[in-house]
Amino acid sequence: MSSSYGKIFKISTFGESHGAAVGVIIDGCPAGIDFDQEFIQSELDRRKPGQSRITTQRKEADEFQVLSGVFEGKTQGTPIAMMVWNGDQRSKDYSHISEQFRPSHADYTYQVKYGTRDYRGGGRSSARETVARVAAGALAKLVLRQINVEIHAYVSQVGKLKLDKPYQGLDLSKAEENAVRCPDPEIAQKMFDLIDETRKKGDSIGGVVNCVITGTPAGLGEPVFDKLHAELGKAMLSINAVKGFEYGSGFEGVEMYGSEHNDLFYDENGVVKTHTNYSGGIQGGISNGADIYFRVAFKPVATIMQDQESLDQNGNVVTVSGKGRHDPCVVPRAVPIVEGMAALVLVDALLRQRASGRLLI
Amino acid sequence: MSSSYGKIFKISTFGESHGAAVGVIIDGCPAGIDFDQEFIQSELDRRKPGQSRITTQRKEADEFQVLSGVFEGKTQGTPIAMMVWNGDQRSKDYSHISEQFRPSHADYTYQVKYGTRDYRGGGRSSARETVARVAAGALAKLVLRQINVEIHAYVSQVGKLKLDKPYQGLDLSKAEENAVRCPDPEIAQKMFDLIDETRKKGDSIGGVVNCVITGTPAGLGEPVFDKLHAELGKAMLSINAVKGFEYGSGFEGVEMYGSEHNDLFYDENGVVKTHTNYSGGIQGGISNGADIYFRVAFKPVATIMQDQESLDQNGNVVTVSGKGRHDPCVVPRAVPIVEGMAALVLVDALLRQRASGRLLI
Amino acid sequence: MSSSYGKIFKISTFGESHGAAVGVIIDGCPAGIDFDQEFIQSELDRRKPGQSRITTQRKEADEFQVLSGVFEGKTQGTPIAMMVWNGDQRSKDYSHISEQFRPSHADYTYQVKYGTRDYRGGGRSSARETVARVAAGALAKLVLRQINVEIHAYVSQVGKLKLDKPYQGLDLSKAEENAVRCPDPEIAQKMFDLIDETRKKGDSIGGVVNCVITGTPAGLGEPVFDKLHAELGKAMLSINAVKGFEYGSGFEGVEMYGSEHNDLFYDENGVVKTHTNYSGGIQGGISNGADIYFRVAFKPVATIMQDQESLDQNGNVVTVSGKGRHDPCVVPRAVPIVEGMAALVLVDALLRQRASGRLLI
Amino acid sequence: MSSSYGKIFKISTFGESHGAAVGVIIDGCPAGIDFDQEFIQSELDRRKPGQSRITTQRKEADEFQVLSGVFEGKTQGTPIAMMVWNGDQRSKDYSHISEQFRPSHADYTYQVKYGTRDYRGGGRSSARETVARVAAGALAKLVLRQINVEIHAYVSQVGKLKLDKPYQGLDLSKAEENAVRCPDPEIAQKMFDLIDETRKKGDSIGGVVNCVITGTPAGLGEPVFDKLHAELGKAMLSINAVKGFEYGSGFEGVEMYGSEHNDLFYDENGVVKTHTNYSGGIQGGISNGADIYFRVAFKPVATIMQDQESLDQNGNVVTVSGKGRHDPCVVPRAVPIVEGMAALVLVDALLRQRASGRLLI
Repeated sequence: MSSSYGKIFKISTFGESHGAAVGVIIDGCPAGIDFDQEFIQSELDRRKPGQSRITTQRKEADEFQVLSGVFEGKTQGTPIAMMVWNGDQRSKDYSHISEQFRPSHADYTYQVKYGTRDYRGGGRSSARETVARVAAGALAKLVLRQINVEIHAYVSQVGKLKLDKPYQGLDLSKAEENAVRCPDPEIAQKMFDLIDETRKKGDSIGGVVNCVITGTPAGLGEPVFDKLHAELGKAMLSINAVKGFEYGSGFEGVEMYGSEHNDLFYDENGVVKTHTNYSGGIQGGISNGADIYFRVAFKPVATIMQDQESLDQNGNVVTVSGKGRHDPCVVPRAVPIVEGMAALVLVDALLRQRASGRLLI
Repeated sequence: MSSSYGKIFKISTFGESHGAAVGVIIDGCPAGIDFDQEFIQSELDRRKPGQSRITTQRKEADEFQVLSGVFEGKTQGTPIAMMVWNGDQRSKDYSHISEQFRPSHADYTYQVKYGTRDYRGGGRSSARETVARVAAGALAKLVLRQINVEIHAYVSQVGKLKLDKPYQGLDLSKAEENAVRCPDPEIAQKMFDLIDETRKKGDSIGGVVNCVITGTPAGLGEPVFDKLHAELGKAMLSINAVKGFEYGSGFEGVEMYGSEHNDLFYDENGVVKTHTNYSGGIQGGISNGADIYFRVAFKPVATIMQDQESLDQNGNVVTVSGKGRHDPCVVPRAVPIVEGMAALVLVDALLRQRASGRLLI
Repeated sequence: MSSSYGKIFKISTFGESHGAAVGVIIDGCPAGIDFDQEFIQSELDRRKPGQSRITTQRKEADEFQVLSGVFEGKTQGTPIAMMVWNGDQRSKDYSHISEQFRPSHADYTYQVKYGTRDYRGGGRSSARETVARVAAGALAKLVLRQINVEIHAYVSQVGKLKLDKPYQGLDLSKAEENAVRCPDPEIAQKMFDLIDETRKKGDSIGGVVNCVITGTPAGLGEPVFDKLHAELGKAMLSINAVKGFEYGSGFEGVEMYGSEHNDLFYDENGVVKTHTNYSGGIQGGISNGADIYFRVAFKPVATIMQDQESLDQNGNVVTVSGKGRHDPCVVPRAVPIVEGMAALVLVDALLRQRASGRLLI
Repeated sequence: MSSSYGKIFKISTFGESHGAAVGVIIDGCPAGIDFDQEFIQSELDRRKPGQSRITTQRKEADEFQVLSGVFEGKTQGTPIAMMVWNGDQRSKDYSHISEQFRPSHADYTYQVKYGTRDYRGGGRSSARETVARVAAGALAKLVLRQINVEIHAYVSQVGKLKLDKPYQGLDLSKAEENAVRCPDPEIAQKMFDLIDETRKKGDSIGGVVNCVITGTPAGLGEPVFDKLHAELGKAMLSINAVKGFEYGSGFEGVEMYGSEHNDLFYDENGVVKTHTNYSGGIQGGISNGADIYFRVAFKPVATIMQDQESLDQNGNVVTVSGKGRHDPCVVPRAVPIVEGMAALVLVDALLRQRASGRLLI
């Protein structure tokens, strides 16, 4: 197991899908941060199930509770523990699969790795664990607020439907105005329809989440192994169902010549800027002050409402029947998770910079 | 700085492009591994400059020296230090850029982060650091040899030229037979010509490296944050010039339905297998015994032999002229680096599995 | 902050003395361990306040709750979260010291370090945090049970009253039969009287806890920096009020000659043993199979029921008056804490040995 | 293996007693530190063998070489590699013990742990590894120089001969004026004679090193597990032959009442000070600005020039004859090692404070 992330701003999560609770400890949060409880709850609300008919109908209030680390409304420099009780646990929905390996789930691999598993709702492998990430990520956003760093993620693709415009021309705030979280209302509607159709067929479909980070000071990120984009990549790839990550020019940049791809520097009132930003705001693993942007690919979720042939723990052929309540497409609810993980990466980079680099802020 | 990778099989690298030496300490290597010095040297030779006219003409013998950890031909469980002296250091090639920020290099970001930098050949940000990774990766391969895990990387794209066949139909051993390291000789020739043409124009071009790992036992990888593919992704993204990573179905998988994408299990003589492998050999972050495969995008290298406008440290507009000896396309030499990093990830996962999972092997 | 301990069997604790709860996440616990809830509770009961008139009269039921990681009575390899709600929080007892620096407490240093502090009962610096350690340590004992390792700590000194006998001649099980936890009933009574007398004077007094570990297989402990005794030392020194640590011959061994101090090997039915054990069961940082034993010095606790001159946050001279409910001597309740920390160190060493050493068990 | 120490200022050492070289990588050193090569060499000279007739006659020039991380006389924020070639390797002195377990050495435990060992001079378990610590520690001292922190260690006991005066009354600079490194010339002479006598008998004897750190700002040290004194204790206990550690009042403090032991605060021109310093400059694991002082117990070294009965790897009874060149008492040469490790602990604490605490300096 490895349920912690971060070197300085370190989070440790716990909890299974149908256990008593899910939660997180954040160790290394600076003292004196305003603990804006409402904001944290609002982030959890963005992730919570049941927001529209295209997300799972599982009912979870997902109201979080603070157990430590906050006193008189401020962080204390001590570990902050946050927790959400698991409410609507229809564990019986899962008893029929207690010995079955659901296709493309983690049932088989957990069984091999540990010799046991909590089969209810996928146990620890369930995306329910991301409640803890969103809570911790919200706290990280509160830290970033102090230096005016903002993070906006949005859905840019569902199945073959793409929002093929550069983020600069979009009003990203519109993403929160529809159930899909795509900032273009028209495409959002088409995506909604596609997801809804998919849902009715008992199937699932993939998607892409884009993320843009503005206001990052130059100098964040540790060279060599912990490059800023390597940390972002790892953080994103650790989210359930993610299959790919690219930043800046990404896979398309491969087709370019260096003479096109290089971002030329210029001076704007004493600030070093670049004419283009194929670098995605990161050079040599360190932020250069430009916008950081990246894309995250999510596969179609493995749980579908159709019969599938599979095996049980004894090697018998079985039919896995889809039950339970699930998302036909994860990207709308993945948006706050992507943002939260990005915030965690940035705050950790910020504190590591303070530890061994020059003091930038 | 963060110049170490791995939790159990932990490597720490050091060295600047034009410093005295580059090297690595590997801590946590099990005792009793045959230290096949020739094999390690042969891996370094695959990475070394000057292999053909499409790679940099910098001359480095890159003969490594072992300083510790090996006794009577075997690893001892103690730290293994390996080192390569830097030979052909034409530092003067760089004096003209001592105060200039080369576009899309790490000059500017290092300067901001540390308030100083070794400008000679990019100093620590140079890909010369990967000598250390390849040496350590070769040792990791020697560990994997014991359990018959094999890693094959190859070039699948240069600019817009793509090798668009699934790896299963390729003879991957052919990749080593040409300078590009593409297993299809015809496409390899076209890629060679494109790189050579690019070189003559004083330009550079991007490419993609694919990697296939066979023989991995099921059960490797730590759930939640250190998922096997998240570690692979971070390791790849930490390599110089990498812009993207995808595994299994990757970005294309986004367009599929769950009913197509799910890999159905079947039993083959008591071994659990899957009919398809969109999962890329990893489910829930843990290997399932199938082939692991992934793709890595490399941008066109930033150093080109053309004049570019830029800034110096004082904010003055300057012209950066390409000098020095550089690769017009990094992917041919990146192949052993990708393999080496993959080997490091797998050995670390293997030892972590021993630490807290079931003993699988 | 650094609220985690262990590399593989890693615990992260949270909670302030008068916050909502104290608790711990254990990440890296092997799957399949019988989660003996009663045993864990019984360990917490050994630590809890109010056991006799010589311990603090604060009332805490200290009943713990499991939030994750256990399914059908077994650990799952996933993080185990355990929590105890803080009950009897008479925070008002502390309002008078909200701005005062109590002598030899952490009030001043926390204030300097963080610029803020939860002054109620010492907040995070309170020994209440050790509830989490004892719970985690009890789980570690359950792991050690599987390989028959046993840990026995006991009080060997209170003030100037010493139990000056080697542990081999003592019946350590008797330690639990009296309130002081000293295995010699006569000396235990004297110690009890001394503590009680001290309590009546509103004063406090120091003591020493000895610890003996039997059944450790040879080969545990990592050489160089994480030597087994270095880890034990750090773990003990991290307990509130500890001022010193020695193992084996300790400070007295300094006075010996090598020819006396060396432990000569002999063979007993194929098992390598030593005639003497000045090494304390550890050689070169690695266990040799003999009993591990060490001693831990605890200072007189800082809270006393007498007036003391001090400063407040503004530099004004103030009189600190002892209120609240406190232990006049911590060693009786420190016994399970010492044992728990020792168990954590051993299990971590055991799992690290599996990771990169030979498989011993 | 665990050959690294530190969270931010992280050192990784390598090298066996009779291997090619010993060395260290320091990762996380801030950029811009003056790399005073002469000073570092002078620290290595304080540790090197052959300084007087009471230290081992092994001849090692111990001249170090910098391989990376320093450019134009300044640290660059990149990993600093330093190395010393092993010169006078009389490996043949050891061939007779290749299969023998020397009493109270690490021969047996390494053999069990790894199934192999470099028997020459103890291999990795040799105190020769401390060359690397002293080099790294010297660099740490250069960092501390910037904030006027000074570290002075000295010998306070050899066998039963004690320097029983508080450090405040001593002129610690005198410690470097004699071969024993005891600041009281008379007692130093007696200690010298005792060690020399012991040497002539082919025996060895233990000793104690005291250490005083002045100028530490208040606020360093991380609460809970990584308390400043817990880190100091671990660092000291990781040094070869150490059996005990105590700080401030230490084991003697046990006998005191809280009313005597508490250090009362007072204000001296706006600076918070304490009348007494039983706390040893650390409260709640965090420095309070007063002098930090501690004591470290070293056992008599295991190598003696007398015949001892033992076992070989096959369980046969053998006679181990002392050969080679060894120190009859380690404490004189341990002084710079203790100082170096203390410096490493303090710099790491300083950088961790920058990372997550208030900025103090």
